[in-house]
Order: sequence, then C-alpha cells, then structure tokens
Amino acid sequence: MFQNDNAFRALGRQECLRLLAKVPVGRVVYTRHALPAVLPINFSLGTDSAVLLRTSPGSDLVRAIAGVVVAFEADEFDAATRSGWSVVVTGRATVVTDPAEHERLAQSGPTSWMPLRETVFVRIDSEMVTGRELGGTRVPQ
Amino acid sequence: MFQNDNAFRALGRQECLRLLAKVPVGRVVYTRHALPAVLPINFSLGTDSAVLLRTSPGSDLVRAIAGVVVAFEADEFDAATRSGWSVVVTGRATVVTDPAEHERLAQSGPTSWMPLRETVFVRIDSEMVTGRELGGTRVPQ
Repeated sequence: MFQNDNAFRALGRQECLRLLAKVPVGRVVYTRHALPAVLPINFSLGTDSAVLLRTSPGSDLVRAIAGVVVAFEADEFDAATRSGWSVVVTGRATVVTDPAEHERLAQSGPTSWMPLRETVFVRIDSEMVTGRELGGTRVPQ
Repeated sequence: MFQNDNAFRALGRQECLRLLAKVPVGRVVYTRHALPAVLPINFSLGTDSAVLLRTSPGSDLVRAIAGVVVAFEADEFDAATRSGWSVVVTGRATVVTDPAEHERLAQSGPTSWMPLRETVFVRIDSEMVTGRELGGTRVPQ
C-alpha cells in the first residue's frame, strides 16, 4: 500500500506559470563547449509568460545562449516531507534589441542580484512548459 | 562605490563539496532529444566525492544519462539578502553494475524520495567541480 506510482503529478501550463511566479531564482540550462552547463539567476515573468533575465552584455551567459534553445528550471522542495515541485520552460533565448522594449524592461523588468555596469535583457520564450509535483512519500509506521 | 565586480567569489573544490553535502536535492543537467534537459533529484555524496543518485532502472533519466557526461547543480539562495552559493559537478554518469557496490549503496547510499519498484544507483564522477558564492548587493541608502 505504500508503493505509489503516482508519487508525482504532472502539472498543467497555467499551474506551472503560477508556481514560477512564486520564486525569485531559477537556473538556465544550456551547452557550453559541448558540455552541459547550468547557471542560477534571478528572473521575472513577462506578461506573455516569457522568462526575463537581466545580465551583462559581455557575459559568458549571453554569448552561450543568444539565439539558441535553452531550458530554464525552478523548483521548491521540502526535505522534511519529501515534497515539492519543479517547472521547466524550454524555448529560444533572445537578447532584447528593441530600444522601446529595453526601456520598458529597465523600468518594470527584472533587477539583477549582481551589480552590472551595462545591462542587457534576455527573453526565454515559454514554447514548452512542463512541471511536476512530488506529493511526499508515506513511510510505513 | 556601490558597483562591485567582486560580487561573486569563485569557490575551491573542497568548499564546493562541503556545501554540496549540506543540501538534499540537486539537478541533473543533460541532453534529451537534442534539447537541454534538467531534473531535480535528491542525492548523496560518495566517499570519493561522486554524486550518487538512486532511481528506477527503466527511468528516462537512466536511459538519457548512462555513460555520458552530465552536470549536476545544487544551490542555496536568500532573496532577502540576495546572497547564496551554487556548485556544479561535471562528469560522466555511470550505472553501478558491480553487485557488491550496489549492495553497499543499498545499505548506505541515497534513498529515493519517490517509491521505486526496482532500484539502480547512478554515479556522477566529480571530474570537474566549480562553484561560486554571491555575497549580496549593497543598495545605496
């Protein structure tokens, strides 16, 4: 009775986006020098559900992800109850080049946790949004 | 005075491994169907500093990562102080096939947060271990 193949539940797109909006930090997953790479970064969600990042135009991250499909992951887990959720957005990362859009994001978009000399915004379009919830495991008494 | 290019600090291997040992969950970063993929999973560290995972032998994860180089990331961040750390282990993932090693891990290795019908252990060798610490940003008063 304690085996439960439904220990995790797939989440719908709207539920995923609602959870994403709760957390300040996620992780960009990409390829660098043909190796899997991952970088935590704070973010916000755009009105069109794109993941929005603020970084430096000369950063390794921008060089690695501009124009390519990346994944962006966020999660929350509670070790005490072995429960939590994770969401992955997969889509093309693009540097915001439109001056009006840049200005709009400079006012209302994500801040950076790192001091930046120059700012560039990167969008990750939410082409594919998947998520799952882990309900916690009952341990026999 | 509030710009600080040293807002993050690179961490040494031993410091990275000490931090990794503090958290129960990390994220496997790999490639699936030519797209970047990421899956959070609980883990433990082996005596040789390998990342040890316990999963199901028929899982998509095992199929995707057995024998290939993956990254494994863990982090902790505090939104209030905009501080935290992240560590990435990069190395080859291998399924433990040696029966004695399997038995040893069944006794002392990681448990799974998900109920498993069958168990397989996966090692990610800590060939490359990198990390950084974000010290928090001072905001002008």
